[in-house]
Amino acid sequence: MASKVPHLMTLADLSPGQIQRIIAHSYHLKRTSLPWLQPQIRLGNGKISTAKLRMPSQSLFNKSIALLFNKRSTRTRVAAETAALLLGGQTLFLGKDDIQIGVNETVRDSARVIGGMCQGIFARVGAHEEIEELARYSPVPVLNALSSLWHPTQVLADILTLHEHAYLFDSSVPKPDDKNHLYTQRHRDLQPVRPLTITYVGDSANVLHDMLVALPRLGHKVRVACPENDKYRPPQAVWDRVVELGCDKDILLTKDPREAVHGADLVVTDTWISMGQEAEKEQRLKDFQGYQVTEQLCREGGANPDWKFMHCLPRKQQEVDDEVFYGPRSLVFQVSDNRKWTIMAMFDLLFGKWDLMDREREATD
Amino acid sequence: MASKVPHLMTLADLSPGQIQRIIAHSYHLKRTSLPWLQPQIRLGNGKISTAKLRMPSQSLFNKSIALLFNKRSTRTRVAAETAALLLGGQTLFLGKDDIQIGVNETVRDSARVIGGMCQGIFARVGAHEEIEELARYSPVPVLNALSSLWHPTQVLADILTLHEHAYLFDSSVPKPDDKNHLYTQRHRDLQPVRPLTITYVGDSANVLHDMLVALPRLGHKVRVACPENDKYRPPQAVWDRVVELGCDKDILLTKDPREAVHGADLVVTDTWISMGQEAEKEQRLKDFQGYQVTEQLCREGGANPDWKFMHCLPRKQQEVDDEVFYGPRSLVFQVSDNRKWTIMAMFDLLFGKWDLMDREREATD
Amino acid sequence: MASKVPHLMTLADLSPGQIQRIIAHSYHLKRTSLPWLQPQIRLGNGKISTAKLRMPSQSLFNKSIALLFNKRSTRTRVAAETAALLLGGQTLFLGKDDIQIGVNETVRDSARVIGGMCQGIFARVGAHEEIEELARYSPVPVLNALSSLWHPTQVLADILTLHEHAYLFDSSVPKPDDKNHLYTQRHRDLQPVRPLTITYVGDSANVLHDMLVALPRLGHKVRVACPENDKYRPPQAVWDRVVELGCDKDILLTKDPREAVHGADLVVTDTWISMGQEAEKEQRLKDFQGYQVTEQLCREGGANPDWKFMHCLPRKQQEVDDEVFYGPRSLVFQVSDNRKWTIMAMFDLLFGKWDLMDREREATD
Repeated sequence: MASKVPHLMTLADLSPGQIQRIIAHSYHLKRTSLPWLQPQIRLGNGKISTAKLRMPSQSLFNKSIALLFNKRSTRTRVAAETAALLLGGQTLFLGKDDIQIGVNETVRDSARVIGGMCQGIFARVGAHEEIEELARYSPVPVLNALSSLWHPTQVLADILTLHEHAYLFDSSVPKPDDKNHLYTQRHRDLQPVRPLTITYVGDSANVLHDMLVALPRLGHKVRVACPENDKYRPPQAVWDRVVELGCDKDILLTKDPREAVHGADLVVTDTWISMGQEAEKEQRLKDFQGYQVTEQLCREGGANPDWKFMHCLPRKQQEVDDEVFYGPRSLVFQVSDNRKWTIMAMFDLLFGKWDLMDREREATD
Repeated sequence: MASKVPHLMTLADLSPGQIQRIIAHSYHLKRTSLPWLQPQIRLGNGKISTAKLRMPSQSLFNKSIALLFNKRSTRTRVAAETAALLLGGQTLFLGKDDIQIGVNETVRDSARVIGGMCQGIFARVGAHEEIEELARYSPVPVLNALSSLWHPTQVLADILTLHEHAYLFDSSVPKPDDKNHLYTQRHRDLQPVRPLTITYVGDSANVLHDMLVALPRLGHKVRVACPENDKYRPPQAVWDRVVELGCDKDILLTKDPREAVHGADLVVTDTWISMGQEAEKEQRLKDFQGYQVTEQLCREGGANPDWKFMHCLPRKQQEVDDEVFYGPRSLVFQVSDNRKWTIMAMFDLLFGKWDLMDREREATD
Repeated sequence: MASKVPHLMTLADLSPGQIQRIIAHSYHLKRTSLPWLQPQIRLGNGKISTAKLRMPSQSLFNKSIALLFNKRSTRTRVAAETAALLLGGQTLFLGKDDIQIGVNETVRDSARVIGGMCQGIFARVGAHEEIEELARYSPVPVLNALSSLWHPTQVLADILTLHEHAYLFDSSVPKPDDKNHLYTQRHRDLQPVRPLTITYVGDSANVLHDMLVALPRLGHKVRVACPENDKYRPPQAVWDRVVELGCDKDILLTKDPREAVHGADLVVTDTWISMGQEAEKEQRLKDFQGYQVTEQLCREGGANPDWKFMHCLPRKQQEVDDEVFYGPRSLVFQVSDNRKWTIMAMFDLLFGKWDLMDREREATD
């Protein structure tokens, strides 16, 4: 393997052009794949034929991707396993009971051993240093599936969902006509999204961090409400990347959720109590009082009356009420579905092709 | 997806014609698949060629089926994973440590998320209400892999095994000649089974419940011996379905195993102590005294001298002795093998084709 | 299935010719498979085309291999799962939480049930008797993935690595030229290895046992240093096989590591504290004092100045220091990579083809 091994830890490592290319590629893979996933029902006189369908990229054919997951996961894991199949490959789920990175063996040795047999490592570890260590010694690409600092694949799904729903924010964008789209494979071009005001209400965690380094560079304003306590605010390592990329000038940080949602086109939140923080539960519930996303909060704060809602899931009622979560503003399940397609794009480009280069226009597979 | 999503919770939801079609399709898939599973040994001058073999239905090509298993399983899981491969797809095993339906996330949200990425959900949960809830919110078909009330795929395997061994119960049915059958793929038609007397001795549990709603409608008499205690008898929710389907007139319920085996062509039992009932072990062993299936019991009760035996496994010695279990009357491993083929048929029809319609004659794939 | 079901418990069951054939076949499969595993990078004007590549044997097409692993494993498991994919099949990982062989069901029943749905069983159980019991009742081949007595697939990887590095021990063997080799698929013939002196320093465990019954028959001398305590020495069952095969005349057993490394071309060790032996840790650390493999030990003992090092991993620092383990003498990761190719060969020959016959020259697939 002549080229330097590419890895991806955070969207901060990508240019805006690279991010856009990944989003466009995700959409392309989604459109190519969906027809294959339909039931073989009879329409009119005959079955839907798969004979004329194009296959998605088969860059993982014969290849295996290790899923090193020290933490439990549903969405990320299911997205990864289903995406790899469509690319012609397979995943190996290695959970905390199967392999404890750094316990029975050093991270260095495990990285070399697993990287010697698999063609990519998708890792959900604990401390961010662990995945950096994995990447240092792995002979194959490492993709961050979630670390203490970053969650790049989640924010890619958020961005794809914004593009697909650009018409919700901009009446000049035509609404997609879904009729028959699955069977014709005609690709509507992905629509540009107008510059949005995106508000995050809650605990500063990995999802927010990748929003902070990505969204401003794509033209959006970010407004964040976190309690006034360092542990709820972006850590220095993250803020350094924000400043380095010049994103800070488009970010407002406040402790007041009402101020944060002012003018918001999109409101985003996440759990207040992540895995491992159960002991702090009572304190956290107290500190986040008033942070629940509701119609009332957004009305009082002066959000765009057409504001939409996202959440990376799983969701607890404390951070967003049922009216918003299951209501027409909610894009949560559209985002969840898009975890699959953005992870598929990353698997294809990073693991299958070792090619994250920015390009004017993505060539077909 | 225009059509209504089909699910299957119990054989009570199917017509006799639908059940017969699934059985015939299972047999067809088995005959088509078996030659692919032979070792590539040399016979005479050349290898067995797979070039001329027909492939089984590939309706799961590119598709992923979620196995949501809150309880441990060997047979059902291995059957599902191996069957999906033959249909061109893959399974994702999500056990109780991977995902706890209803714990970290509501059943509703998990159903929508997993159903948004997978093309079918095969679920072994606890209370039957949970799988009903899954089906309510899943955008893709849900198949019951075992619930507190029902176990439809087990009873399908029992029925297929009866058809394959129809000659054991009826001397006018020709005995199959297995010589070379694997390599020629000539399909012997599945034989009809004469009306049988089928006896279940033991605890009223999910396997028996699906027998009660299916076997009488296929022409068989069912005789059941359970201790006189409501917890060992079919719950009201099951009995309501039995009566609704008119099956009760062909069912005898007694506390006396000897009376139950009278005239039995087939004797079936199951464990007395299911997962989660270990605390009641002593009481249960006492309550089921005299219920062990043995030669003596069946002789004294007046079973058909040629009676056969089935058990869904895993088996403990208390409910059936070694002489019967490992003896020539036993069809337990033939049933176990058939778990694979009936599950394959359900995966093909339900997950791959969304088509459980009754049909005079099943078309080829 | 007409032929007798073949199994493999230990290399003691194979002739030297059979071992050589497996090694040659491993190398063949490795060379055939590696080009498929490269990233689809652009070279010059076009992509590397996979259209002209030969596929490896597809003897597992449509087939499923059960991995029955009562003990945790990284290397063996990842090797098996990635190898099965390349052969066209899949693996089912059944860990100790999925299935407890001998706990909920007898080994006999589980063997029959799993063997009725899968086409091979790769088993890592506890006591060696358990895998013998599995093989007795399984209708499909059983391959030992590690038992209390033997670890045949590890020693096959050691032997393949020796052949690939034959030039390190013999200046008349040409050094391989790796340039472009992946893309041309020109197969350099596997080189013969000159008779070596191979030293094992440490606890007598399954890896050593398969070395003892295999290496002398391939022309090598084996020198072993174990503390003078029966529990650190080969058990009688192993030594009986050693003697039966006439290997004992080429084996030296001593308690002195310095004496053992005298003239050593290759030094091998393994962990002193295996899974389940944590309670004995303090005693073992004491008993193995002076057994750490270091430059000093080998210099003082008079090893071949060009001695090389192997370890089956995972490794603790106590048994070998960093200088040796990560230094230029170390072949540990080359061996680890070769776990995949030797397991692939065993899966192909044992599970796919039921053919472990010795042959003058292995035919192509």
